[in-house]
Amino acid sequence: LTAITIAIDAMGGDFGCPVTVPAALTVLEQNPEVNIILLGDNDTIQQQLKQSKSKNAVEPRLIIQHTSEVVAMDEPPGQALRFKKDSSMRVALNLLKDGQADACVSAGNTGALMATAKFVLKTLPGIDRPAISALCPSMNMDMTVRILDLGANVDSSPEQLFQFAVMGSVLVSALNGVEHPKVALLNIGSEEIKGNEQVKLAAKLLENQTGINYIGFVEGDDIYKGVAHVVVCDGFVGNVVLKASEGLAKLMAQSIKEAFNRNILTRVVGLSAKQVLRHLAKRFDPARYNGGSLVGLRRTVVKSHGSATILGFANAISQAIAEVRNKVPERIGSEVSRILQDRQQL
Amino acid sequence: LTAITIAIDAMGGDFGCPVTVPAALTVLEQNPEVNIILLGDNDTIQQQLKQSKSKNAVEPRLIIQHTSEVVAMDEPPGQALRFKKDSSMRVALNLLKDGQADACVSAGNTGALMATAKFVLKTLPGIDRPAISALCPSMNMDMTVRILDLGANVDSSPEQLFQFAVMGSVLVSALNGVEHPKVALLNIGSEEIKGNEQVKLAAKLLENQTGINYIGFVEGDDIYKGVAHVVVCDGFVGNVVLKASEGLAKLMAQSIKEAFNRNILTRVVGLSAKQVLRHLAKRFDPARYNGGSLVGLRRTVVKSHGSATILGFANAISQAIAEVRNKVPERIGSEVSRILQDRQQL
Repeated sequence: LTAITIAIDAMGGDFGCPVTVPAALTVLEQNPEVNIILLGDNDTIQQQLKQSKSKNAVEPRLIIQHTSEVVAMDEPPGQALRFKKDSSMRVALNLLKDGQADACVSAGNTGALMATAKFVLKTLPGIDRPAISALCPSMNMDMTVRILDLGANVDSSPEQLFQFAVMGSVLVSALNGVEHPKVALLNIGSEEIKGNEQVKLAAKLLENQTGINYIGFVEGDDIYKGVAHVVVCDGFVGNVVLKASEGLAKLMAQSIKEAFNRNILTRVVGLSAKQVLRHLAKRFDPARYNGGSLVGLRRTVVKSHGSATILGFANAISQAIAEVRNKVPERIGSEVSRILQDRQQL
Repeated sequence: LTAITIAIDAMGGDFGCPVTVPAALTVLEQNPEVNIILLGDNDTIQQQLKQSKSKNAVEPRLIIQHTSEVVAMDEPPGQALRFKKDSSMRVALNLLKDGQADACVSAGNTGALMATAKFVLKTLPGIDRPAISALCPSMNMDMTVRILDLGANVDSSPEQLFQFAVMGSVLVSALNGVEHPKVALLNIGSEEIKGNEQVKLAAKLLENQTGINYIGFVEGDDIYKGVAHVVVCDGFVGNVVLKASEGLAKLMAQSIKEAFNRNILTRVVGLSAKQVLRHLAKRFDPARYNGGSLVGLRRTVVKSHGSATILGFANAISQAIAEVRNKVPERIGSEVSRILQDRQQL
């Protein structure tokens, strides 16, 4: 395996180093070909490293690069971009641009990461705007469902939705080895006119495009049924669906807890059901689905959930490694240029 | 209590009479002041009635009115509106217009119901378009969360979102006795510009309006946390969120079943946990939340889920009764006219 270097924004997220540093060490242990550069406050990172037992074995592949600033979770993206030039996030992205790292992982401010990544790394030729994409659980165990955009864009044009579809399709075939991933547009079927203009026009673009296995419209409940590998939507819709799903999953998990805690009898039953409940919790563990890919950029950038656990952040790093290993940005680039050539010939 | 008459589209929904007729009988038994007119094929309804034991006691309050047509679940709304003039749905709505019934309940084609209701009943003065609103489960047991629009409109303008907020607020105060319901706009917080233009302009309208307890933006996960009584969004977003939530709830329910069915041991545990699981299933039973109100019309119209159970359809009828009893259309009308006067004085 070729060596891969991942730049990690060690300060980002709700917890910063106590999550990012142990996650980085775990990934280094499991992936002997991976090097990690941790960006952030040197003292804070060193202190976190001291608390770790496993650091010695992987230390040769771990570099700490001091940065003096941190982008706050609620900082306006424009402000972060203009004034936080020595932030852990910005410097991590600079390393990608300079070829010193292959991918960047951050649990920081999404808007700032998106704006800074777009500014520093630029989008691939033919891609108007990057999108955020992540995996969903589904009833169909044989199908990995990927949804995009999850909030990088609002009011996406038909052409942008089309580009999201192309990128999602490449992502699934590159990472999951699916040859002709089924691609669907998220729409509604209940109102008089069945969907909005953008979605209808995007459908026409996809229908006329060779090389994309476009299967048509799906509705909200189809996401979790697993009928398409790629579900495409505007970032406003995708973000609301993603967060509402997180909220509902939490509500249901809490309700299960409460139901087993109602009285002594249910508590005894709960004890006996512990293994089963643990198995269930594992299936819906947000850590499993952590790691949103910022696709459409010239390099791999992965956004971790701000409140990710160590396991979750490690999964986000693994996602970045998989994208580098499978040359996702390069493949998106060549697929988009193939499509642009197709169009010129028409 | 004043007598209330409900017109029921007996043929609508995935099951028709086997669901709608028993549900109607249940509601009649429980509500001595309610009369029901069942619209549909006379023979089919009579056959269903024969199978019911309880019909005798309530028969004096049950009228069957024969109609010769049915709107198909997948029929284009415009076609239903133009050509199905003797459909169970259309005639039910005609009864409202003529003052022979106070409310209509249908589990039929949503788009056709919306289009026909708008054409037959008209919207209230000052309301551009009706919206669909329903209840959500929430973590906050003290708060009923109502969301609208759930799919009657796409590309809602700021003014329309404002009207949805007004209608939702009236609905919650009329039905749940909440004096100043908290009203929020559904938005996203992760992208560079924080939301789309429509939502931002709607926020300005709501901030400047007296009499509406507008609390600001909420995100997808806040819906199920229960931070606002009323969550306002465009119908495209609301429909996708509603259906995705249904899909996720089903996926989780199926996963619970599977987890307890994995082997003999887990099956034994499942038996002991049966009571607890039943309690849980009850909390998330879609029947509990069945009954989407078409608000903004001059009369009460309630849409039941197409696949609702007898209990679910009965709940939709109860929702209609509550809206009539609490004069929801009248209250929305007077609140809107108050706001219009407010605006003229500015």
